[in-house]
Amino acid sequence: MARRPIVGVMGAGDEASETDMRLAETLGQLVASEGWALLTGGRNVGVMQAASRGAKRVSGSLVIGVLPSDKDVVSPDVDVAILMGLGNARNAINVLSSQVVVAVGVGGAGTASEAALALKAKRPLVLLGPSKEAEAFFRTLGGVIFVADRAEKVPEIIKSHRLLGS
Amino acid sequence: MARRPIVGVMGAGDEASETDMRLAETLGQLVASEGWALLTGGRNVGVMQAASRGAKRVSGSLVIGVLPSDKDVVSPDVDVAILMGLGNARNAINVLSSQVVVAVGVGGAGTASEAALALKAKRPLVLLGPSKEAEAFFRTLGGVIFVADRAEKVPEIIKSHRLLGS
Amino acid sequence: MARRPIVGVMGAGDEASETDMRLAETLGQLVASEGWALLTGGRNVGVMQAASRGAKRVSGSLVIGVLPSDKDVVSPDVDVAILMGLGNARNAINVLSSQVVVAVGVGGAGTASEAALALKAKRPLVLLGPSKEAEAFFRTLGGVIFVADRAEKVPEIIKSHRLLGS
Amino acid sequence: MARRPIVGVMGAGDEASETDMRLAETLGQLVASEGWALLTGGRNVGVMQAASRGAKRVSGSLVIGVLPSDKDVVSPDVDVAILMGLGNARNAINVLSSQVVVAVGVGGAGTASEAALALKAKRPLVLLGPSKEAEAFFRTLGGVIFVADRAEKVPEIIKSHRLLGS
Repeated sequence: MARRPIVGVMGAGDEASETDMRLAETLGQLVASEGWALLTGGRNVGVMQAASRGAKRVSGSLVIGVLPSDKDVVSPDVDVAILMGLGNARNAINVLSSQVVVAVGVGGAGTASEAALALKAKRPLVLLGPSKEAEAFFRTLGGVIFVADRAEKVPEIIKSHRLLGS
Repeated sequence: MARRPIVGVMGAGDEASETDMRLAETLGQLVASEGWALLTGGRNVGVMQAASRGAKRVSGSLVIGVLPSDKDVVSPDVDVAILMGLGNARNAINVLSSQVVVAVGVGGAGTASEAALALKAKRPLVLLGPSKEAEAFFRTLGGVIFVADRAEKVPEIIKSHRLLGS
Repeated sequence: MARRPIVGVMGAGDEASETDMRLAETLGQLVASEGWALLTGGRNVGVMQAASRGAKRVSGSLVIGVLPSDKDVVSPDVDVAILMGLGNARNAINVLSSQVVVAVGVGGAGTASEAALALKAKRPLVLLGPSKEAEAFFRTLGGVIFVADRAEKVPEIIKSHRLLGS
Repeated sequence: MARRPIVGVMGAGDEASETDMRLAETLGQLVASEGWALLTGGRNVGVMQAASRGAKRVSGSLVIGVLPSDKDVVSPDVDVAILMGLGNARNAINVLSSQVVVAVGVGGAGTASEAALALKAKRPLVLLGPSKEAEAFFRTLGGVIFVADRAEKVPEIIKSHRLLGS
């Protein structure tokens, strides 16, 4: 059996907006429905929690959480918890382990760093519901960038551009 | 559903002996048979390859590979590949993400570092087939240490000492 | 003797523009003239090279290079070379070890990640010569942010706002 | 001016013995007297504190501390503090940034991991005052290993074997 592709979904924790949470939950479910593994920050809060919960609605889904430390509370919807103990250096690993990175909202510094690290590691980046400032800025950085306003667009983009290989 | 416990199996890569390989393959199968997830270094060589192959003989098994970089060849028996890009600093994450660490052989510096980091991170450590020098040394370091001469002993030790919680 | 404060100067490597290089060289010299240690990415290229060269024009200066790996060529103007072997995860350490982070140019993904990680780690961030998109975006992230158009402004900002403590 | 070579001195923190402390303080002074930079774990305790204090007795010495996090108390004798935020993964960086690693005592798991990581990274390793179990074990791992019973022997070994280059 071939390994499932991994789609990383990044976004705010405590400061996630309701819109971010809704987008993330729908996105998590859509990613799992495609048979892709979902990778998030794994904590039981914000975008990572919502995306994980969405994914676990799908039978046979696989949710990978890459957590900052063994002090953090793991979301109950995470199947595999990897504990880093690396502080923010973890953000570089999250993106490296994902074949595609989706940044939900990009309203905080942590998510911004992951979006930038994704481009640096030459991972395709999808901005889901970004502010207009975020979209304008990330487009100046070069790299493979897409913008989506609805979660449903993300799997379409991933498939039509063959971002997970053909 | 509760998350599966993770048992980390560490050991030599290119320099693994045939004995190491046999121990690792049996151990991988036994770990998977208990319903535990197997975590290895994920590369397609040595102890990590053998343990992963053993685990995938068991239906429904889960094999997590934590790899040095995106340049490495992933073992075909790995279900979830986490790419670190951290060089040897990865060794600290392997052990942190495992609830129990089994060191197969401990004949090389990499495995020795993982065994020591396991104790440092207060993970129970099982030495499987160690040299007598390795056993004598690790016993001087303190921490929770067990020694097994056959792979079959490892799950017995893990269960009888409740190393994965009760 | 009290430890010198550390000012981190981040910016493009191979893709640094001539403007970036000039800003960085002047900035390196100014940082050293204040008696502050300079921290850069340490490689012999781009903003890190230029800032280091500027600093070493000042007698008694201290230049710290935090390099990706032991494969990289160290700038000859680096006094202390710390080798990470961490890939892009290094970016999180660069900013954590600096009391203030200055991003020169912010035209690439690597520098963008360091600027975002600086804010995430609650380090004051000075954008020197940013694009208008970069300035607009980073201002949406919150945190302590200043913008300078000339290198001479940076020490003024650091001192007048007491960013290195009083 | 050529960069100073860096000699890393590793050893126990809170659990350092009085013997370890004496060895480390003498060693720190000797390393600095040779004009080499001293690299330690940087915290204000144990072997790292003692070695740093010894080094700062020498005028013009340079002491680099590579600390686990920005929560730790830095030894007052550290000139350059690099903050990792990496937990035990820091141990891999300490040894990578040193051209020679001296392990004082090797009585604890942290020091054992650094000694093993030094060999893994192909750094020459000097065991200063090891237990007989430690000496016997590390000799089984291969790599360039020396054993010294007095601090004075360490610079002699480093120079006579040209461990810092010729």
